[in-house]
Parts: sequence; structure tokens; C-alpha cells
Amino acid sequence: MEKFQRSKYYSVCLVSSIILNLFFFINLYVGDKWKELSWSHRAAAEAEAVASLSCSGHGRAYLDGLFLDGKPVCECNTCFGGPDCSEFSPGCPADANSGDPLFLEPFWMQHAASSAILVAGWHRMSYIFSDHSYISQELEKHVRKFHAIARNAVTAGRYIVFGSGSTQLLNAAVYALSQENSSSPARVVASIPYYPFYKIQTDYFRSVDFEFQGDTSSWKNTSDVSENVIEFVTSPNNPDGQLKKAVLQGPSVKTIHDHAYYWPHFTAIPTPADEDLMIFTISKLTGHAGSRFGWALIKNEAVYQRMLVYMSMSEMGVSRDTQLRTLKLLKVVLEGEGREIFDFAFKTMRSRWEKLSQTLSMSKRFSIQNIAPQYCTFFQKVRGPSPAFAWLKCEKEEDKDCSTVLRAANIIGREGSMFTADNHYVRLSLLKSQDDFDLLLHRLNKLVSGEDGVKTM
Amino acid sequence: MEKFQRSKYYSVCLVSSIILNLFFFINLYVGDKWKELSWSHRAAAEAEAVASLSCSGHGRAYLDGLFLDGKPVCECNTCFGGPDCSEFSPGCPADANSGDPLFLEPFWMQHAASSAILVAGWHRMSYIFSDHSYISQELEKHVRKFHAIARNAVTAGRYIVFGSGSTQLLNAAVYALSQENSSSPARVVASIPYYPFYKIQTDYFRSVDFEFQGDTSSWKNTSDVSENVIEFVTSPNNPDGQLKKAVLQGPSVKTIHDHAYYWPHFTAIPTPADEDLMIFTISKLTGHAGSRFGWALIKNEAVYQRMLVYMSMSEMGVSRDTQLRTLKLLKVVLEGEGREIFDFAFKTMRSRWEKLSQTLSMSKRFSIQNIAPQYCTFFQKVRGPSPAFAWLKCEKEEDKDCSTVLRAANIIGREGSMFTADNHYVRLSLLKSQDDFDLLLHRLNKLVSGEDGVKTM
Repeated sequence: MEKFQRSKYYSVCLVSSIILNLFFFINLYVGDKWKELSWSHRAAAEAEAVASLSCSGHGRAYLDGLFLDGKPVCECNTCFGGPDCSEFSPGCPADANSGDPLFLEPFWMQHAASSAILVAGWHRMSYIFSDHSYISQELEKHVRKFHAIARNAVTAGRYIVFGSGSTQLLNAAVYALSQENSSSPARVVASIPYYPFYKIQTDYFRSVDFEFQGDTSSWKNTSDVSENVIEFVTSPNNPDGQLKKAVLQGPSVKTIHDHAYYWPHFTAIPTPADEDLMIFTISKLTGHAGSRFGWALIKNEAVYQRMLVYMSMSEMGVSRDTQLRTLKLLKVVLEGEGREIFDFAFKTMRSRWEKLSQTLSMSKRFSIQNIAPQYCTFFQKVRGPSPAFAWLKCEKEEDKDCSTVLRAANIIGREGSMFTADNHYVRLSLLKSQDDFDLLLHRLNKLVSGEDGVKTM
Repeated sequence: MEKFQRSKYYSVCLVSSIILNLFFFINLYVGDKWKELSWSHRAAAEAEAVASLSCSGHGRAYLDGLFLDGKPVCECNTCFGGPDCSEFSPGCPADANSGDPLFLEPFWMQHAASSAILVAGWHRMSYIFSDHSYISQELEKHVRKFHAIARNAVTAGRYIVFGSGSTQLLNAAVYALSQENSSSPARVVASIPYYPFYKIQTDYFRSVDFEFQGDTSSWKNTSDVSENVIEFVTSPNNPDGQLKKAVLQGPSVKTIHDHAYYWPHFTAIPTPADEDLMIFTISKLTGHAGSRFGWALIKNEAVYQRMLVYMSMSEMGVSRDTQLRTLKLLKVVLEGEGREIFDFAFKTMRSRWEKLSQTLSMSKRFSIQNIAPQYCTFFQKVRGPSPAFAWLKCEKEEDKDCSTVLRAANIIGREGSMFTADNHYVRLSLLKSQDDFDLLLHRLNKLVSGEDGVKTM
């Protein structure tokens, strides 16, 4: 009887063990999760090891960052430090200067599996794609698809050129548009307040074919716009977030529409943009400013060909590594018809704007721009503003240097004169990390609540 | 007794099963190979699926290539076709035109595990690195380390600027060197035969600060080189593989040393290059032309600062994705002190040159350049030539258009006039894929063996 018991006991154990064996076997060799990984495993494990480092939610480590004793080191958000970024520096300034779009970083951390990409050592070593171009056809297709979904631009009847960020495409467009036979250099203009880079870049390249000539409005009433003019139109505008139209008209006027911010998270999309030359960038769409990727939609074939030549002359096309990564990012944002990223990004930007507005509504000394609610064809409803930047004004006549007023409150903004505007204005960036925004809001609250005769709710 | 037997039998099975369970458990959860992969698995599996497609050794599929019914499609080498690239097109020309460095592709396929990189969705989204620059300090360190190992350039006392390929850095250097206060534009020159891009690019940008002025030698005997002159020195030279020194001298002469080919696989390294401004590229080092990555070593701080400004104006620095990948590639080639890649690349290029030399030694109609064997500080021995290009000459006076002679034999080369040289010359690329080289050699053999009175061994 005892032996019989033992035999029964063994058989139960055996069956259990066999079931466990089966479980392991399936996990190891049959299940999708562990199937057939070989040469890629090391790279995947390296990336996960770096990502698993805790930086207290105030930083992250990178594969190409510093390693100490074989361990990755956290790179902390501004004003945070220590080995795990948990130490806040109380006296650190709230830096709202740059347009670094880190507000989208959490979105990509939440989409780790779908947005990761493994680049093989032999990926796209050639100078050219199989169609002999420098442009991935798959990526071009996805760019067109994404505009259709975002409903922010017409791509039909347009050629596409890629550039290393919209930065490069701005200059490529100026070169392409000024290379029409003309005795005098094309005059390049923009409407105040304008993004300073238009002037700095155009001046820098010092081509005999073009010259930056300042404000658009000084050319508006000139009846004789017979010479080539290139007008930069930034919509929504950087710094003030207003939707803009071209000011100049006529056969010798050409426009470059900089639509870096024309996405549902920064503005209502009243209608798909349908201009001759439009420039976009992933920096302000997915937040990948470091990848340096932008594209231009171009109606005129000759202009398109000239922009291609610029890209050849400048760098023989955009890095294939960057094109591969951008394709992956676009595939992720295309999932679910773009709802996920635009919902995330709009909610973040809208909430920041509301908080900022509430704080400044109590102030008599400071104001921010007014952007009217508008119907958005993407969200299919009237929606309030959610701009990338606040265009803050010091209302007192004596506050002639508003950025110094803010600096005294430990806030760094970009002074109005940088945008060829009055220094009563300062641009405050709202699209940096949550830490950056929280500190900015905290400092503004303190500044406003310290005003004499501050409004009460 | 029977029950005792059964019990014994069960216990043996149970022990075996438990051992098997242990094996599975270790493989699944403890062993390094399967440890802790989660979010990265999908990307790794996608890359392996694409890489596993057989393209008969005459092609490969890419992650961003075409997919049909969810399956990747082979991209075939020139002259090969069919779903698995197994079909050779007999009438297809041997294309030896471009300098596409695909001869290194097999090296990277052999180093799949160590050269793969997994890029997380949130990798380096910011415009800047933590030191507020556009340049990865880790990558800069590795570039310096690699020059020390290759013994081809002195990096001590040099600043480093990254560019999107040496292409971009050539122009950055011309801008930087011409921006010294001068009443007239800097004259940009190069020695015939020279890489056509120097002229095309300098002409294209049409800056008021510089002008391409052709051949260096026409300035050599001018005693008054008082105006700014910028001399391009290409060493080894493209097209002819000769080591070169600057021709012009004097206080107003500046040089740009293009060292794209100054690596042990293309030339003996007699001594580390030690010039004021030197430009290198991974295109011709690792073969990753598609990644668009190069760097400049610069002695003068003001020139370095101006090249940084160029990179800001042009594109706000090189894509961080490209910098990450380049870092990984350099880590691989640094393993074993660079022996592996240089041995592989030198053997390949040397063997191609020997085969070509043998074929053409039988010809009275064609000759190729003579490059003397020389002591190489990297290989620490005297070694024969292994240039990237053959500079082929049609010896007959009447063969004034040598490229047409080759074209009749179904060979595509780049005509001498492209290099501002005589059209008795043609450049033939030797660094493309093995398929390209094999076809070129085959066609040349046929051409030579068809000559009247061909030399016999």
C-alpha cells in the first residue's frame, strides 16, 4: 500500500513536471515572444539595460551617454541632479528659452515596444536607394498618409524633399527660389515678430542670389515689387502662435510657408494648408528635435528639382539612419489614425496654457497673447488655444526690458528684440519637459502674487 | 514487485523531467541570452525577420524596404534580379562609376551581433546634448582613439567638428576659412586631376566670400599670393590614389586636407597626418556612405568655432541617430585594435588591384596608374597598392574619349574631364560590391583578350 501511494505520488509529480516542461518549451521555442532571436539579442539587451536605470522621473540614461564602471549614468532634467536625478536645486532658474519639445518624451516612453527600432550593421550602406535617389519611398508614402490623417496639408500634386530638419529646408528653399534668372539678388522678408533664424541663416550664407531685407510690411505698399521677393510665412507664428497668411502678392513674389507648428496639438486646423512651398518637421510633430528631420511639400517641379540639388550639394541627402527612424515613428503615430499622439500632445499643451492663463489673469503687470477658439478639422470641434510659446508682455511703460524683469524672478525667456519686436515682449517656451513647465509656473505664480494690488479671483 | 518497478520507472522519469525543467528555466530566466527582454523584443524580431530573407548572396532586404503581403522584398545588387536576386542579366553594363563602398558590406554581416543597435523611441529627443553642444562627447573620444590605433592622424591639439558626411564639412571649411576680413573673395583651388565636387559645391553656394578658381598650378608661380587662397589637398588623391602634399605656401594660403581615403585599406600610411584642417568620413572607413557622417580635425580655434557656426546654420548639428550608430560602428572596429576591419578591407582591395593589374598587364591599349609599394606604419611593413579607384588610360592617341571605348565593351567609368583631366583617362571604381567588381573584371578581360597583338604572359 505504501509503495502504491508512492507510485501515485510520483505519477502526480511527473504529470506536473511534464506540464511545466511543456510551458517552458512553448515559451522558449514556440511562443512569439522568444522566437528565433539570435544576433539581435545583444543590442536589445543593451538598450533595455540602459532604459531600466531609474532616474526618478527627472531624467533618463542613453546608450551613447556616459558609463561608469560599466553602468549607465542618468542625464537629468534642468535643475535636477544627483546619481538618480532626485536632487532639486532650489535656486536654479526656470529656463523657458529654447523650443526643445521634450513634452512628448513621456509619450514615447509609453510606446516603447512599438517605437523601438533595431538597426543592423549593414543597414543601407549605399549612397543611394534602389531608385537611385536619396529619399526613402516608404517614408515619403507615410508622410503623405500622415498629412491626410492630420488633415493639415494637401499633398496631392506636390513633390517631397527631405532635409536635416526644417532648418536646412528653409535655406534650401531660399536657394531654390532665388535661382531664377534675375539681375539683382532676391529680397528675403518676414513679418514682425519673426523667428530670428530666417535672418541669421540667410545672412550667413551670403549668396550673391539673395539678401535678407527685414520686415514684410515695408514692402507691402511698394507698388513696384518687380524684383524677386521671397516671403517667409510662419503659421502658426513663432513666437506668438497666430495663424498667418502671406502679405505680399504679385508675379515676382514667392512664399515659403513654415508650418513647423501647424499640427493639431499647437493650433486649431481650420483647413488643410494648400500653398506652393510648405515646410514641416518632426521636431515639433513627434518631438524628435535631435533626429534633425524635416520635409518640404512643393508644387512647382523646377523648384523641387532645385531643392534636390541643394540637398545633394549640402550633404548628399538625409542620413538613412534618420530616415529609418522617422519611418518607425510615423508608423506609431499613424496607428489609430493619429488620435493617440494628438490627444496626448493637445491635452498637455492645452493644460499648460490654461494654467499659465489662470496665473497671468491675476496680474496687472503681465499679459499674454489672445488666441481665439476656433473650429479644428482634426478634432472636429471648436477648441481653445494650446500654443507652443507664450508671447508675454510687460504692460508697464517703464518695463522696457521685460526679460530683465523676469530674470529678476529667476525666469529665463527670449527677449522680444530677438524677434525684431519690442523688448516689452518676451517669448516663453511651453513645450519643454514637465519639470521645466512646473518650475516656470511656480516662479510666475510667485512673481504675480507679489505684485502690488494683484487682482483677486 | 510490479508496482515497485512502476514506482522506480516513475522516479527516473521524474528526475529526468526535473532536470529538463531546470534546463528550460535557466535558458528562459537565468541565462544571459534570454534575460529580461521585454519592450525591445518586437524591434529585434522585426530586424531578424528581414535579415533572414535569402537573397542568394546578390542582395539583401531592409527594414524600410518594400513589403509584399507582410513579407520583405529583396533589393538586388546591380545586374541581379528575381524575387531572390538569383537571376543575372547577361547584357547588363559593368557599372564602375560611383564610389559606393559596398565592398565592406560582408564585414558587417559577419559582425551582426556586435554592430547592431537598438534605438529606443525616446532616444535623444532634445536639440542638445547635456553639455549644450550638438556633438556626442563619447563619439568624439572614440574618433580620437581610432585615429591613434589606425596611426593615420594626429588628434592631439585638435578640435573636432562633426558633419553630415565629408561633403558638408568641405563646404563648412570653405566658409570658415574664407570668413577672414578680406576685400576680395577667397580663391579656392585644387590640383588636376581633382574630385569634381570641390568645384561644383563651391560654385553652387555662390557666396560673396569665395570663388572656385580652378587648378592650383596656375597659382604656383604667382609671386603675389597676397589674396586669400584656399587649397584643397586630397591625399590619397581621388581619382588616382597618389599621396599628395600642399602645393601653395605663404601666409595667405590655407589648406583643406581631404583624407577620406587615408586609411590602411586604401594606402600605405607613411606617417600620421598632421595638418591644420583635415577631413575624414565613415563612408570610406566603415563603408556606411548612407549614414552621412564625417568629421574634421582642426588646429585653429577660430576656424573651429566658425565651422561649428556653419553646422548650426546648416542643420543644428548632425542627427543624433547617426551619431549613435557611428559610435557603435567605431566600437566594433576598435575591438582588436582595428586589425579585423583593416585586414578584411586591405585584403579585399589588394586582391582586386592585383587581379586588375594582371588583366591590364596583358594590354597594349590600356594602362593604369603606378603606385609604389611603401612602408605602412599601421601594418608595420612595406605593402603594395590597394587604391579605391583605377585611373585607367587609353594609350592610343586616337582613343580621345576613353570612356566611350569602355562603354562599347559595356563598362561604365567616369570620364577624365570630370576630374578636369584629359579624356584619355577614365576612373574605374574598385570599392563597390564583389558582384560589381567581378563583372568589371570579366568585361575588361574580354576587352583586353580581344586586342590585336595582345601581350602574352
